[in-house]
Amino acid sequence: MTLTQVSSSKVFAGLHQQFTHVSAVNNCTMKFAIYLPPQVQQGQTVPVLYWLSGLTCTDENFMQKAGAFKLAAELGIAIVAPDTSPRGENVPDDTEQSYDLGLGAGFYLNATESPWQTYYNMYDYIVNELPEIIQNNFPVNKQQGISGHSMGGHGALTIGLKNPEKYSSISAFSPICNPTKCPWGIKAFTAYLGDNPTLWLEYDATELIKRNIADSNKLPILISQGDSDNFLAEQLMPDNLIAAAEQNNYPLTYCLEVGYDHSYFFISSFIEQHLRFFNSNLTSK
Amino acid sequence: MTLTQVSSSKVFAGLHQQFTHVSAVNNCTMKFAIYLPPQVQQGQTVPVLYWLSGLTCTDENFMQKAGAFKLAAELGIAIVAPDTSPRGENVPDDTEQSYDLGLGAGFYLNATESPWQTYYNMYDYIVNELPEIIQNNFPVNKQQGISGHSMGGHGALTIGLKNPEKYSSISAFSPICNPTKCPWGIKAFTAYLGDNPTLWLEYDATELIKRNIADSNKLPILISQGDSDNFLAEQLMPDNLIAAAEQNNYPLTYCLEVGYDHSYFFISSFIEQHLRFFNSNLTSK
Repeated sequence: MTLTQVSSSKVFAGLHQQFTHVSAVNNCTMKFAIYLPPQVQQGQTVPVLYWLSGLTCTDENFMQKAGAFKLAAELGIAIVAPDTSPRGENVPDDTEQSYDLGLGAGFYLNATESPWQTYYNMYDYIVNELPEIIQNNFPVNKQQGISGHSMGGHGALTIGLKNPEKYSSISAFSPICNPTKCPWGIKAFTAYLGDNPTLWLEYDATELIKRNIADSNKLPILISQGDSDNFLAEQLMPDNLIAAAEQNNYPLTYCLEVGYDHSYFFISSFIEQHLRFFNSNLTSK
Repeated sequence: MTLTQVSSSKVFAGLHQQFTHVSAVNNCTMKFAIYLPPQVQQGQTVPVLYWLSGLTCTDENFMQKAGAFKLAAELGIAIVAPDTSPRGENVPDDTEQSYDLGLGAGFYLNATESPWQTYYNMYDYIVNELPEIIQNNFPVNKQQGISGHSMGGHGALTIGLKNPEKYSSISAFSPICNPTKCPWGIKAFTAYLGDNPTLWLEYDATELIKRNIADSNKLPILISQGDSDNFLAEQLMPDNLIAAAEQNNYPLTYCLEVGYDHSYFFISSFIEQHLRFFNSNLTSK
């Protein structure tokens, strides 16, 4: 596996870099961005936070708009931002080219249905392939966290809940909390996973949190949600996740922020809380 | 003059808003963005920093990528980001649609040549029309600063040098310091101002700083420049400005930052220095 460097820029004394590589699980060339804090220049290995972006995004949105690097540099945190779907000429897109299916809308699952299943395996990509690349090519240690926004918040929650041995904490901004019940999730899961809703439950945070999770596997979760978010009631449904967490004694901190919307203006306002949450939950795994 | 609100998002307890309005000097509909810090909600009026963006930019680049709002909220600073040229169906563009002339490349001057002169009057827009709109419609006081990046750094320097009574300080990232000597400037000035280079001197910071400026009119200038900036030698030429400042005892602070490039990754790394510089030079004008 060869990494091809696309860009490198110094930012807050660290480096923002973009790379492409051939993905075995997605059968295409994938692009990701990484922020390496200045501590790595002194030979330190650093923990790494994976950031999963939302619908229509690429590796660029978080890196350009979140304002995360000042504190990441101070705390010594690497951040990895993958793309949101496979890309390329051969990769199928929604026939109607809608923003919420196909390119830019991988939903962090392994597709089982045609024509998606050969390429749309973002779950395996985020859980296994990409971390292996990062571990083998960059000065990071084994401590990982996972975070994301909207569709990427859904990805962070479901991947973190299903792989507690891989992460120290989970956080999300404005996540799709109960995708089997909302239009975005139903549309995507029907296409990618078929029309048996029982199979969708594997990728629904509210359903996963209801499972019998040993206390030692309950990663702490932080969620930030703006109450002026246009998607809150119809698509995000945090109340369902909160109720399931309460019923199952799951350690969830839910911060409702008055007046904030679904944009990166909201994320930038509270990203420091999430970096500090990640940092405070690090352990030597 | 009517303002039409295009968007409003809460960010760092303040508001980011976009507006359009008919511009008398540019003969088209112009768009700008404003950040209003939380202090205005308690009835305070706040000082305002004008940010002039570079080639190809709109009102959005700085607002989305600079990471300025946390400190602007803390210090109580409004920020206004105009567009970089007139826009619209009637507005002429470069016949070759190059990125460095026409739309997105107004160069903060008043054009005298056809077909530009009816629309490309960004100097009057920034100096007079836009501040009047801001003063009449938002809770800002009379204290103003001017800053910008690249072509916008050129705009901030030249406008600030020519209007010391209007601003408290000038700052710039990676400015075009001597446009009458570099390819970007020569191309734009030839088109907008005609082929008599004497007329170009009005819009060249290095030339303006050579003029006999009374000490009381010497606004402090801060410049940040990355030494890995691809445009440094051919287009930006800060050494010429520094030499002119030294010869004329002009108060210039020039910060060369090792390893940084021309991007917003650089700006975001040092924007706090510029906001603190603006804040520390405020006086009750």
